[in-house]
Amino acid sequence: MSDQTLQRWKLTIEYCGTDYYGWQRQEAVPSIQQAIEEAIPEFSGQVLRIHAAGRTDAGVHARGQVAHVDFAPFKKPMEGFEIAKAINAFLRPQPISIVSAEPVAGAGEEDEFHARYSATNKLYHYRIINRRALLGLDQGRAWHFKRPLGADAMHEAAQILVGQHDFSTFRDAQCQANSPIKTLDRLDVTTHEYDAQGGTEILIAAEGRSFLHHQVRNMVGTLVLVGEGKWSVQDFKAALEAKDRTKGGVTAPADGLYLMRVDY
Amino acid sequence: MSDQTLQRWKLTIEYCGTDYYGWQRQEAVPSIQQAIEEAIPEFSGQVLRIHAAGRTDAGVHARGQVAHVDFAPFKKPMEGFEIAKAINAFLRPQPISIVSAEPVAGAGEEDEFHARYSATNKLYHYRIINRRALLGLDQGRAWHFKRPLGADAMHEAAQILVGQHDFSTFRDAQCQANSPIKTLDRLDVTTHEYDAQGGTEILIAAEGRSFLHHQVRNMVGTLVLVGEGKWSVQDFKAALEAKDRTKGGVTAPADGLYLMRVDY
Repeated sequence: MSDQTLQRWKLTIEYCGTDYYGWQRQEAVPSIQQAIEEAIPEFSGQVLRIHAAGRTDAGVHARGQVAHVDFAPFKKPMEGFEIAKAINAFLRPQPISIVSAEPVAGAGEEDEFHARYSATNKLYHYRIINRRALLGLDQGRAWHFKRPLGADAMHEAAQILVGQHDFSTFRDAQCQANSPIKTLDRLDVTTHEYDAQGGTEILIAAEGRSFLHHQVRNMVGTLVLVGEGKWSVQDFKAALEAKDRTKGGVTAPADGLYLMRVDY
Repeated sequence: MSDQTLQRWKLTIEYCGTDYYGWQRQEAVPSIQQAIEEAIPEFSGQVLRIHAAGRTDAGVHARGQVAHVDFAPFKKPMEGFEIAKAINAFLRPQPISIVSAEPVAGAGEEDEFHARYSATNKLYHYRIINRRALLGLDQGRAWHFKRPLGADAMHEAAQILVGQHDFSTFRDAQCQANSPIKTLDRLDVTTHEYDAQGGTEILIAAEGRSFLHHQVRNMVGTLVLVGEGKWSVQDFKAALEAKDRTKGGVTAPADGLYLMRVDY
């Protein structure tokens, strides 16, 4: 079944998702996938489909999204950095960049690389700016949360989610995963000084092999209930155990979410 | 000479400068000053001039610009956070935010506060992303520098500039300062991991009471000559001592410059 004339490439991709309707190609609205798929034929003459590690939603950003694509031979051989540079030249001035391109094993080959199925770990960051004033520089790039949040309590509650659980409470109704059971390897909540007026940035790092649809945003939207003092850590535990989306908090806005890294 | 009916307020301001022709009001092009001056009458009915600590150039960003403004009495007294909130409401959706507003002593009062003349210290950050691939998320928010830079050598050279010097080599031809002699209190060059593909962020922190026009950008544009290995630290010292702008490096792009803080 393998086509030995094709070479599979792994692309690592960075983007600001604000002006896009997410990764996935859709009719009549701009997507990251479409932008890259339209840039590829411009330098290669090849119309190709690219496959991502995960479909980020509208407004979600990426520092290390990964996708694969199968190129037919180029007229003259190209190095990875030349492919990245060539695609980027036709992505300008969009806020999307191919950070690197590396040759990998293709369909039918031993150790076949598949951006989605071969992934062993994903790291997401979620940024909350906790202060009264609206955002200037980080508009669209973080969740602006006005009421004071206690990050220590959020971190304590977050540890309840680490490990293997039924994450139905944090699963979007449209999630297509076969099972709500996932293993979360890390969920750390840390605070950082944001401005000289006492504003803080709360950074939530979520790591695991795979996630349900909206899982990170739903976990964050529920953690803030603990941060605000509306919920105790016990209430948070009860929400997880309820296995019921209606028992969780809101879905945190896309603006704060960054796909940082995919490991293979 | 003091007008006791006016109350002076200190505003701390954050903005993304990408889509603006700098702080200062100009004809027919958008500026940060104009955006704020147009928002103020919307909530207060008062047409006022605001005075900044320093006029940032086109494309330069701020995390902690400071300005002052003299308000006539409001119909009912307003707290600082209410003033900030009211201005921000009329700045939307522009990437500009009044982070705080504090009452200060006005013209003719003892300890009169003046955003520009009372400033005792300013902190600028300059961000360089050092990697081959074009920028995605940080487009317009950092200087993209492709060739490898040695940050240690840059830091060593930077220490030559700390202290009181004639900074003519780093002074723009249009600079209106009376003297090219300034005291630079700190010029630190540090590196940080930027992406998982080996890209690094080089952060340059410059601190001092005041700066010449384009001084930070000209210092950065000259430091990269050392970072690239084109110049030795001795060459860098000779450039300072030449007191001649034509002996310095290029003016680094506005994109990477952030006014972080002004102290009083």
